[in-house]
Amino acid sequence: MPAAPRRRRHPARALLACLATLSAAAHADEGMWMAAQLPQIGEQLRQAGYAGDPAALADLTAAPLNAVVRAGGGTGAFVSADGLVLTNHHVAYGVIQYNSTPQRNLIDDGYIAADRAAELPANPDYRVLVTVGFDRVTDQVLGAARGKSGRAYFDAVDAASKRIVAECERETGIRCSVANMYYGTDFYRIRQLELRDLRLVYAPPRAIGNFGDETDNFMWPRHTGDFTLLRAYVGRDGKPAAHSPDNVPYQPPSHLRIAHDGPREGDFAMLAGYPGITYRHRTAAEFAEQVEWTLPARVAVFDQLLAAIERGGAGNAEAATRYASQVQSLKNNRKRAAGELDGLLRSDAVRQRAQDERGMLAATGRGDRRDIDALAGVLAQASAVRERELLLGLLGSQTQLMRSALLLERLRLESARPDAERESGYQARDLALIEGTLKQVQRRYDPAVEKALLAELLGRYQRLPDAQRLPEFDAAFGRTPDALATALDALYAGTALGDEPVRLAAFAAAREGRALPADPLLELAARLIPAQLRLEQERKTRDGELLRLRPAYMRALVAWREQQGGAVYPDANGTLRVSYGRLERLQPRDAVTYAPVTTVAGIAEKHTGQVPFDAPQPLLDAIARGDFGATADPALGTQTVNFLTNLDTTGGNSGSPVLNARGELIGLNFDSNWEAVSASWWFDPRYKRAIHVDMRYMRWLMEQVYPAPHVLREMGL
Amino acid sequence: MPAAPRRRRHPARALLACLATLSAAAHADEGMWMAAQLPQIGEQLRQAGYAGDPAALADLTAAPLNAVVRAGGGTGAFVSADGLVLTNHHVAYGVIQYNSTPQRNLIDDGYIAADRAAELPANPDYRVLVTVGFDRVTDQVLGAARGKSGRAYFDAVDAASKRIVAECERETGIRCSVANMYYGTDFYRIRQLELRDLRLVYAPPRAIGNFGDETDNFMWPRHTGDFTLLRAYVGRDGKPAAHSPDNVPYQPPSHLRIAHDGPREGDFAMLAGYPGITYRHRTAAEFAEQVEWTLPARVAVFDQLLAAIERGGAGNAEAATRYASQVQSLKNNRKRAAGELDGLLRSDAVRQRAQDERGMLAATGRGDRRDIDALAGVLAQASAVRERELLLGLLGSQTQLMRSALLLERLRLESARPDAERESGYQARDLALIEGTLKQVQRRYDPAVEKALLAELLGRYQRLPDAQRLPEFDAAFGRTPDALATALDALYAGTALGDEPVRLAAFAAAREGRALPADPLLELAARLIPAQLRLEQERKTRDGELLRLRPAYMRALVAWREQQGGAVYPDANGTLRVSYGRLERLQPRDAVTYAPVTTVAGIAEKHTGQVPFDAPQPLLDAIARGDFGATADPALGTQTVNFLTNLDTTGGNSGSPVLNARGELIGLNFDSNWEAVSASWWFDPRYKRAIHVDMRYMRWLMEQVYPAPHVLREMGL
Repeated sequence: MPAAPRRRRHPARALLACLATLSAAAHADEGMWMAAQLPQIGEQLRQAGYAGDPAALADLTAAPLNAVVRAGGGTGAFVSADGLVLTNHHVAYGVIQYNSTPQRNLIDDGYIAADRAAELPANPDYRVLVTVGFDRVTDQVLGAARGKSGRAYFDAVDAASKRIVAECERETGIRCSVANMYYGTDFYRIRQLELRDLRLVYAPPRAIGNFGDETDNFMWPRHTGDFTLLRAYVGRDGKPAAHSPDNVPYQPPSHLRIAHDGPREGDFAMLAGYPGITYRHRTAAEFAEQVEWTLPARVAVFDQLLAAIERGGAGNAEAATRYASQVQSLKNNRKRAAGELDGLLRSDAVRQRAQDERGMLAATGRGDRRDIDALAGVLAQASAVRERELLLGLLGSQTQLMRSALLLERLRLESARPDAERESGYQARDLALIEGTLKQVQRRYDPAVEKALLAELLGRYQRLPDAQRLPEFDAAFGRTPDALATALDALYAGTALGDEPVRLAAFAAAREGRALPADPLLELAARLIPAQLRLEQERKTRDGELLRLRPAYMRALVAWREQQGGAVYPDANGTLRVSYGRLERLQPRDAVTYAPVTTVAGIAEKHTGQVPFDAPQPLLDAIARGDFGATADPALGTQTVNFLTNLDTTGGNSGSPVLNARGELIGLNFDSNWEAVSASWWFDPRYKRAIHVDMRYMRWLMEQVYPAPHVLREMGL
Repeated sequence: MPAAPRRRRHPARALLACLATLSAAAHADEGMWMAAQLPQIGEQLRQAGYAGDPAALADLTAAPLNAVVRAGGGTGAFVSADGLVLTNHHVAYGVIQYNSTPQRNLIDDGYIAADRAAELPANPDYRVLVTVGFDRVTDQVLGAARGKSGRAYFDAVDAASKRIVAECERETGIRCSVANMYYGTDFYRIRQLELRDLRLVYAPPRAIGNFGDETDNFMWPRHTGDFTLLRAYVGRDGKPAAHSPDNVPYQPPSHLRIAHDGPREGDFAMLAGYPGITYRHRTAAEFAEQVEWTLPARVAVFDQLLAAIERGGAGNAEAATRYASQVQSLKNNRKRAAGELDGLLRSDAVRQRAQDERGMLAATGRGDRRDIDALAGVLAQASAVRERELLLGLLGSQTQLMRSALLLERLRLESARPDAERESGYQARDLALIEGTLKQVQRRYDPAVEKALLAELLGRYQRLPDAQRLPEFDAAFGRTPDALATALDALYAGTALGDEPVRLAAFAAAREGRALPADPLLELAARLIPAQLRLEQERKTRDGELLRLRPAYMRALVAWREQQGGAVYPDANGTLRVSYGRLERLQPRDAVTYAPVTTVAGIAEKHTGQVPFDAPQPLLDAIARGDFGATADPALGTQTVNFLTNLDTTGGNSGSPVLNARGELIGLNFDSNWEAVSASWWFDPRYKRAIHVDMRYMRWLMEQVYPAPHVLREMGL
């Protein structure tokens, strides 16, 4: 123990320390709130500048939140009474691509439907989901689980959820899901209208919608017109229907109205959307593991896999081509992991989370403490096998023939059971995806590279401590690099899985549960799968325990925040959330300040004439003319393009509408800044920003550059 | 002619247009003033915030300006009564390098002389020059030239200048030069005390003095401690002397005092130094040529030479090594040319200069107009052969054997004449340099690459119009690519100049005017040199005409500026100049603002542990301790590092002292920003900035990090 301090701590100092913890733990601008929580934080909302009634935001099946929809992989919003959906260009990219041909390249040229007849049908799997029900089903989900533990707890929750979904989906045109809030504390049944006939109404050219592309991705200042307008259609009966020329525009229960003026620095802003996943309420131990082990380990192993691909493909131009996409993906993942690590270190997140948790635990009663201790034990079990889990995961995702063999053998096993009892991923509805995976091997495989990747991954496996060993793997690959090399050489010299017909013949057998052809890799898979199944069982047992124990941690955290005068939002899980804040500048580095609003001057500055900075001539001409009229910012005296807020977002928030204090649409979320890449774990108000298309830019483009006056009229402009 | 305008131009509009021209032509902050001009612009200086008497600055041989010296290739200043000279780390780099050994690496470790005995002698050719005389000699220089033209005018000016220098340098320890101001309008004899015994007193480690290196070069925000302290010694008689242990510290006539507080945004600042060359007062036609031809042509030819080196060295790792430095230099030159082009386009310099010149010409009398028209004619003659001049220049600078052959043959010709009559560059004092050039060929030559470079350059020559052809070149290389390739193959198959002994034998013959050995490349050089001499004669004839005619242009410009209420500084020519302005932020791009002061936080942010961002541990520790004391900025509450002003600088201003309104030393100039790379032609107040070391950072390093209390005391700190 440290020596007793010479001075007693002054109460005012203690208070200051406490306030510091509070502000670190619950920043005024942090929060992905469930709609139902908004009345609870109404006072904060009003203080931040919201002019409407927070109570009116509580029901996500009523206006204005029922105008916010799930669109493709992101978010969208209705912006007209006739079903116009506004979302990002990158969220609707598949729709634009689907309608493009070499002769009519809508990606490059953009598209304006002259009238409704000219609206182009989206790819048939494109969906817009309108939330029509959000009901608490915690008791139904947990009823049968209570008293159980481990795998049994997991299975009980899983079975109850599936039952609720199946029952709910009896209604046609409705898609249902059960959302797990606060890590197993609460469960909600979500009912969504599944709109299946979407059509392309307006898309800007790529060089506007994706101006800057990868170079500007995650970057601010930004100058991208990342928006597209679709229209939802339904059958004549008003019900969701597949595409048909007879369908009629969907009449949404409400739609957002575009503001006539734009925002300025400091102005209130709020956003609604479907953020995918965050880890903000994970334990201090999980934070420490992420920073001290997971992210550095990911960076290191990605580096080594990149080196292995380089090694395996040296002097082989065709191999380089085949692995180009895997290399790109590894580099991106490495960059993300390194960026997340940098950010968490810069924010001192581990120390702050630990300090906050110590305070919380001191204020937590014995009952929950017991569960929290047990939770720590389960997490420690998982940590004990983390390196093996990382390596086995990569064994599946970073190889082609090895992955195919494991997939085929597992499919053979699962196919012997009734479809409903099969592991998800191996059910009848997954077969097309599996077949696709097996087919694409041809374009992405080279034996020397795959052996180099496996030598790297399994070499690392060989160096694991005994506690993490798997007898099946040791038997198959030996325990020395030489044994491994010999085993790999024999496997890849003997396997015929490199031939597509052989893989597809094995697939035909596997999907019917029949014996697979004789092949060294398939025989190896048959020997390894028992280990895989055993680990899966262990994982589900742990997951069941986590599901059972985390609620105690969440209860303690909610109580702790209440004591500090704050509320707790559930970590993001793909359900509708609202965040609020303001337009705020960014000071990312010493002496550098980025204003929160960009202007068209920046487009001309960035323009090089080369992709991705090849602004179209009509845009450059319009900028040079300077004829901005009503869409110009009165203070800046020019046309704005993008703006920056401190809103709390993550992946899935693409296309989220940004509203002003009066609830009018001022922007469209499309990205966040590089400094915020660690925000999925830790919200640092100094660095967390979200990047939006200014609706005035969209209006100006649609008025002056690629005019669509009929669409503007429909949006009330 | 355009149709008559419907409205007559309103007088107020005409006035506004005129004012716009005025402000464009003479920005308040633009100007590299001669000391003698400062009383003339005294009112501006006072309005800008200068608290002293501008008249006291008029004499550059009196305090404070006689404390500002030429040091190495840059500027320095006396900062103690015992001859301490403060300059940049990069300006004193040769001195540090000269004293470094593998065992005692002063570059990496820095150096602190514990006492005077420990001060380390500089390389013997390092000089510090103290200006002790600055006298107008226009009449002596131009007396014999008047009435002449062309080459005769050039030779008369050249001969008079050489006479003045020779006479002046009869005094021992004095170096003299004749400076041409306003392009031949005025001439000044400059007398400088030549201090030859310099010693290293204090240098920070490379990772401070050159923190960021090439990556941060031209960049702001910056975090570099680019300073070093030397001491000048003289003989016991007080006269300049070569290094000797008996020498004593030089007692300068005055020295600068370091300010106790530091500057803030908006504060007045001024700077004195030796800027090398600017082109601000060139004609509108020269501006247009620079932007429309010279810079694009340079970018294009550098790209093609880079491609040629790539092509010629393909698959040859040794060739890649040999040409690495040439490739780097071509890339740097390409980057500079492209940056200058970008800047001039961004500033709309061509249009603005042309508009300004039109106004000037309209206000100019017939006599000067005649000379200005004649000047335009001479410039047009030069333009007519510009592409050939560019190619022949590169033929000399970008080849090794070809250059050696031309050098040797020319040396042979010149060596037949008395030394004083030889072309400069081929005199006795140049022989060591020529020998060095011939020796280094070995490390920088590959025949395939040289042939590829020549094929590129001479291929471009072959495509020139007939008016630019040279019979000697056509005879040597033919007029088709095939003929060229055949000629090059024969030359390089036959030449022995690739062998150093052969080159040195030829050198021994050439320096004595003897016949050179038989060698195809030397024989080629003998056939080409007559063309080279003819072009040189043409060039000198044009230069004489430019020297005769530009003064009319300058007179017209000075009169035009007087009419606008402004004064004209001469374009930079390596003589002492003063500029004044203030600390000013930079807004280089849309939505980006750089504060004018950086802090140590930025060092920690940039630190990666890898060169060039490998801040030394003692510095990182001191930053973490945060013990900044008296050197901390009171408003920022932390230690500043560098600051940014709008002062007018160019190459040669490295090491210039930056003074506050009271004439106290607040900073040390060491770089400018990338956006200002075009400022040698056009001063754009939006983008022109200069980057300085904050003297508080130097003090803090010398107090807290690498302490040298005795040196601080000597500087009065």
